Amino acid sequence: MSYEEKLNDLEPIFHPRSIAIAGASEDSGKIGTKMFHNFVAAGFKGDIYPVNPRGGCIQGVKIYPSIKAIPGPVDYVIVAIPSAKVLDLIADCVAKGVKAVQIFSAGFSETGNEEGRRLEQEMVDRARSAGLRIIGPNCVGISCPAIGIPVPSTGGIGKPGSIAFLSQSGGHTETLADVGRSREIRFSKLISFGNGSDLNALDFLTYLSGDPETQIIGMYIEEGKNGRVIFERIKRIAKLKPMVVWKGGETGVGGEIAASHTGALAGSNVMWGAAIHQAGAVKVESLDELADTLLAFQNISGVRGNRAAIISQLGGGAGGVAVSAADVCSQHGLGIPRLGKKTRDRLSAVIRGAGTILRNPFDLGLAGRLPNILGEVLDILDHESHVDFIMVNERIDFLRLFISLSEIHAMNDVLIDFSRRSKKPLLVVSTPASADVERVSAERRLSEAQIAVYPSFHRAAGAIAKVLRSRPVLEVSQPQTN
Amino acid sequence: MSYEEKLNDLEPIFHPRSIAIAGASEDSGKIGTKMFHNFVAAGFKGDIYPVNPRGGCIQGVKIYPSIKAIPGPVDYVIVAIPSAKVLDLIADCVAKGVKAVQIFSAGFSETGNEEGRRLEQEMVDRARSAGLRIIGPNCVGISCPAIGIPVPSTGGIGKPGSIAFLSQSGGHTETLADVGRSREIRFSKLISFGNGSDLNALDFLTYLSGDPETQIIGMYIEEGKNGRVIFERIKRIAKLKPMVVWKGGETGVGGEIAASHTGALAGSNVMWGAAIHQAGAVKVESLDELADTLLAFQNISGVRGNRAAIISQLGGGAGGVAVSAADVCSQHGLGIPRLGKKTRDRLSAVIRGAGTILRNPFDLGLAGRLPNILGEVLDILDHESHVDFIMVNERIDFLRLFISLSEIHAMNDVLIDFSRRSKKPLLVVSTPASADVERVSAERRLSEAQIAVYPSFHRAAGAIAKVLRSRPVLEVSQPQTN
Repeated sequence: MSYEEKLNDLEPIFHPRSIAIAGASEDSGKIGTKMFHNFVAAGFKGDIYPVNPRGGCIQGVKIYPSIKAIPGPVDYVIVAIPSAKVLDLIADCVAKGVKAVQIFSAGFSETGNEEGRRLEQEMVDRARSAGLRIIGPNCVGISCPAIGIPVPSTGGIGKPGSIAFLSQSGGHTETLADVGRSREIRFSKLISFGNGSDLNALDFLTYLSGDPETQIIGMYIEEGKNGRVIFERIKRIAKLKPMVVWKGGETGVGGEIAASHTGALAGSNVMWGAAIHQAGAVKVESLDELADTLLAFQNISGVRGNRAAIISQLGGGAGGVAVSAADVCSQHGLGIPRLGKKTRDRLSAVIRGAGTILRNPFDLGLAGRLPNILGEVLDILDHESHVDFIMVNERIDFLRLFISLSEIHAMNDVLIDFSRRSKKPLLVVSTPASADVERVSAERRLSEAQIAVYPSFHRAAGAIAKVLRSRPVLEVSQPQTN
Repeated sequence: MSYEEKLNDLEPIFHPRSIAIAGASEDSGKIGTKMFHNFVAAGFKGDIYPVNPRGGCIQGVKIYPSIKAIPGPVDYVIVAIPSAKVLDLIADCVAKGVKAVQIFSAGFSETGNEEGRRLEQEMVDRARSAGLRIIGPNCVGISCPAIGIPVPSTGGIGKPGSIAFLSQSGGHTETLADVGRSREIRFSKLISFGNGSDLNALDFLTYLSGDPETQIIGMYIEEGKNGRVIFERIKRIAKLKPMVVWKGGETGVGGEIAASHTGALAGSNVMWGAAIHQAGAVKVESLDELADTLLAFQNISGVRGNRAAIISQLGGGAGGVAVSAADVCSQHGLGIPRLGKKTRDRLSAVIRGAGTILRNPFDLGLAGRLPNILGEVLDILDHESHVDFIMVNERIDFLRLFISLSEIHAMNDVLIDFSRRSKKPLLVVSTPASADVERVSAERRLSEAQIAVYPSFHRAAGAIAKVLRSRPVLEVSQPQTN
């Protein structure tokens, strides 16, 4: 299938004009009902129809007894009913001219029994013969924040962005969406495809490779059965857009569990580990690493080299942090250059005093509590040709000893202002300690201004090192034909 | 020096009856003044005397013009005055019969210049000839929570506990104290010794090895000059008490910075990496790993083997998390055993329903939202002989979709109750996502009940694996003679 065909084929999934939710009812405890509320709360622009044989109404909206009973056209149906009733519903969808169906329901091939496998195959055969596409079963489905489609199961929705995430696991999709909302990792699409009975990883990858709303692709995958084909697809796409891949079920036990989770074999971890690297994609090994890396691609992909200037702590007094930050950077292959004499002279004209260390990493001493001094220091570093990016360590517990939260916000405004006008990316390290509420408040303001915030130098350095090592040709982002 | 001599020598440092703070004044911006307020706020039981030639008073307490002018005896003096004035102050301390002095002030050997080195040597010579001991210079000093001595610089103080932390870096000491307060990592002593001009790592290690208040020892060290001797000391102590060692300045740049930070050479990283392991201590590479490992030694040191039962998510729906948790455990050498038939039969009698996976890791499905069911499941696992410890994944963002925060607290009460009566350690994994305030509230309640909480399976598994690999003879905790 050509890219254009795939695009047309999947368009009603990502931009449906109307959605029906089979399984929404007057029973507020049902997942279908929650999904209906989630779509309303997220502000979905199209029509939403709850469907349940028992009828009734939710939030003043009539519940239709069947898909066929809905008066207007229906592009997309979300199915949250017992698996035994799904075949009848598919027949209704075909009759109604529905384009695609997302099956939330479990009880298919992932059960491992013959009955579940047969039911899934029967469902796919019937749908395909009628041109109806299926997402799932056993999946939480699709989120498309730009048009107000939340993660259906949780209602999670953040600001729209340029990252697509593709996953067999609904749980990881939900969690990444929640983490993304907190850290301002902004998504074009989140796709949980579960058992992948009809539309699978390959189909969605093809779509995303040409999707103009998507600049970065993250992926969680357990499946091993199409390993080689998926690897070849990743290889082609990674030339166009950065790809970050988390392979689950890599170990013996994990692999066994993956098999029962989505009914797919997890494949050899040796093959995958090497293949992801060879394909030019970035391999990550946890949800934290996945989120950290996507955030780095989103906010600091313009970084031109590996040389860091480090302000080891705002507010001063952090010789040990300077040592540890330098250790961590070295471990990740980042450089901490000595600065030119001109830069040092300019810095010493701005900051003076005991405890101040005018080398990289910088200990600004007490001067680092004054917004205007901080701004001048950043401007000097901006002109230093040996520095590619700046890392600033902000320990809220420490700052709160000396200045108020609003003064901390004023310091952060300097960072925000700098990151808006400088081409040198700026990252903030904010260590969780005891002043959590203040820390969260400060971090959110930075994140909202699209500054990447990390909880440790280790995680910040790891993420930026991954961006530097991948370096796909971001400019050449044309649709791919296959 | 024998252990008993060392104990007597350092006793006035950890249990002073009276403390003077040189540099406390009516100027609220001065660090000495802040230290005075910190001691009052922490509820230090002994006498505290502010000292400043300008006199005046703070919080109704008279500021004495000099150490000699203080009427009562003074065991311990904290010095936060310019380095140029320190020699005169030492003379005063000797005249007054002070036992030990902590020099917060910088401007000594860590500057790298001859003048600083000479001043430090002069200070040490004068003090030693008069039997006065020095902590520092260039350090934040000592905290002893049991008698109300906070980290002097920040005022941080948590509940007293059994962990001692020893560090060249004041910044790391402050941060670990803050992290400890949040995660209920409870300290017997926190010791920042800076340049270690008189009392150094060896002295404090000897003291802590026999300190009955200390059962676990954490250490951050940059120094390399006494590498072999320190390594031999660690080797002996690790047989008595678990030792967790973080070596800073291991890399080229980090080592260079370490040299300027405390005036010590950082030594070869190859030597240190191997030596820490050989010595039977646990090597960690970041503050997060240090805190995670100390918490594990504190709360779950009774763990008898490496076999985990995992509840992959409270509230259900986490097949992907189960796969990832299994991957992470395998990577850290932890086992996820199959359960016996009897256990499976008992579990299936308690929990039923679609989505429930009665294998390890467990997906309890909707049953995992009911406290009484959770309690019954834990009791069944308690009787399963193939399980050594239990990990429970609690994703607050997800739980909050279905139950209130007070219902989440009720679920956590079940975990707390179980951890009090079972010999099988229970850990909680709580993933940071978007519902931070609720999450912090839930985590704090668990931590206060001495349940170890980790932000990811990766960090939980890493910490428990370190405890299992170290396995010192905890019972044989006699004072060491050298």
